[in-house]
Amino acid sequence: MAKKVKEVSVSDALRVRPGGPVRVADLDPDSAPAFPGNGKKDAPDAMIAMSAELSDLQERLYAAGRDNPDAPRLLLLLQGLDTAGKGGVIRHAVGLVDPQGIEIKAFKVPTEEERAHHYLWRIRNALPTAGMIGIFDRSHYEDVLVVRVDGHIDEAEVAKRFDEINAFEAELAASGTTLIKCFLNVSRDEQQQRLLERLADPEKYWKYNPGDVDTRLNWDAYMEAYGDVLTHTNTDVAPWYAIPADKKWYRNWAVAQLLIEHLRALDLGWPAADFDVEAEIARVRAS
Amino acid sequence: MAKKVKEVSVSDALRVRPGGPVRVADLDPDSAPAFPGNGKKDAPDAMIAMSAELSDLQERLYAAGRDNPDAPRLLLLLQGLDTAGKGGVIRHAVGLVDPQGIEIKAFKVPTEEERAHHYLWRIRNALPTAGMIGIFDRSHYEDVLVVRVDGHIDEAEVAKRFDEINAFEAELAASGTTLIKCFLNVSRDEQQQRLLERLADPEKYWKYNPGDVDTRLNWDAYMEAYGDVLTHTNTDVAPWYAIPADKKWYRNWAVAQLLIEHLRALDLGWPAADFDVEAEIARVRAS
Repeated sequence: MAKKVKEVSVSDALRVRPGGPVRVADLDPDSAPAFPGNGKKDAPDAMIAMSAELSDLQERLYAAGRDNPDAPRLLLLLQGLDTAGKGGVIRHAVGLVDPQGIEIKAFKVPTEEERAHHYLWRIRNALPTAGMIGIFDRSHYEDVLVVRVDGHIDEAEVAKRFDEINAFEAELAASGTTLIKCFLNVSRDEQQQRLLERLADPEKYWKYNPGDVDTRLNWDAYMEAYGDVLTHTNTDVAPWYAIPADKKWYRNWAVAQLLIEHLRALDLGWPAADFDVEAEIARVRAS
Repeated sequence: MAKKVKEVSVSDALRVRPGGPVRVADLDPDSAPAFPGNGKKDAPDAMIAMSAELSDLQERLYAAGRDNPDAPRLLLLLQGLDTAGKGGVIRHAVGLVDPQGIEIKAFKVPTEEERAHHYLWRIRNALPTAGMIGIFDRSHYEDVLVVRVDGHIDEAEVAKRFDEINAFEAELAASGTTLIKCFLNVSRDEQQQRLLERLADPEKYWKYNPGDVDTRLNWDAYMEAYGDVLTHTNTDVAPWYAIPADKKWYRNWAVAQLLIEHLRALDLGWPAADFDVEAEIARVRAS
């Protein structure tokens, strides 16, 4: 593994540039920016190298939330088409962290009860509590993606939802939630390859869903919808990161590194003792 | 690491013997039965050696539950005094598993709403769903331990609760839940040592709770209450395992190994395709 002379921030490298309209076609799905090694062979070492720091940072966050409902929290939001690797990121990147500090929520097709509420209702119900790292496998962005591509909402409603989402996320950020919004960017060819792999291996049949091909047949519409999302909801308090997802090893490393960089930025110490340390030492010794 | 000539089952080695009354004093907190190596130095390799199989077995369970609400589930229940290592087991043993397949529930002092219900109400609400591994950090056993030691229930109520718990767990087992009940057995001296370590390190102050010493001052009463639990709720369908917990490396390895052995026993294959594989390959190729 190359010596780390100067660490390039993954947050900087993968942040979707604000300003002009974003086109997914302009984002490279197959690159590996800021990776501190020479490709795939260095990935296992890179993951091991980060796990101690990630573990320490997460424990500080957890400790901060222990007795303080106003402590910071972190929300890692994962979006991407089928096979982009939402599950893989949770397994391999989030899997580096103590499971006690993680709250995972997978948003599926809304239930009847969920449909009877505003689309942000179920999202609010699943927000991470103080000191926790929340993981959203899909999110409220499905409400401006699949429902839009399928024609269930019109353009005026899409625009209204972008505003609502920006206001919602600004409120989250203001109340102490660090948002890391990741678009896992898999190429059309790589997706085809991954679907064929699932169909070639009986151990992977269960991961295959014929509906994934229907989504694939709407590829261009999805890319346009994602481009609009990355254009209109890419705010300073809740920025988007475009994760090149054709290389699984890079995708997993990059998301773990984003977690580290955002946790570092919280600059958390350890909670002070709210008891008399010397007196307690004496009590334990006497017990 | 020693060659694995014949694997001794940890389930057999640590199962609390049914029949006569169990005394905690007769259970060794400092041994390492069935460990396939030469002590602590071999523990990291032993953990790495088991992680691939554990991962594969857990994925089979998860796959089975994907579309089948009657699929098996597993419940790992962790009991033990403060510092016995419930958190350590979750971090290091459960942490080997994909976090998407894990549902962790820590039972604290009951809330007002929980107290307004039968003590098993909150337990039922937290049971793992099909295909999942549920982790209970404390459990309904607190309702025959701390409340008994603190004198909130009389002996007749304790006996009634043992019957209720046995009936409840038999019902769980009959409906497809594999129960692994672990008593993390830490010695009085080792607990004192661990409490003093927390008080010696400002990074660990947050883990220290003066109430832990109050519990420690009732050590004998807790041991008696645990002995009764291990005597009266150690059934064939929901057996107790006594985990020697003075050696952290052994404790973590043993619980991970219990997970593996119980998952193996489910003998799960992979779900069959519920679609026409060849037709789907053609669809993906054409898309």
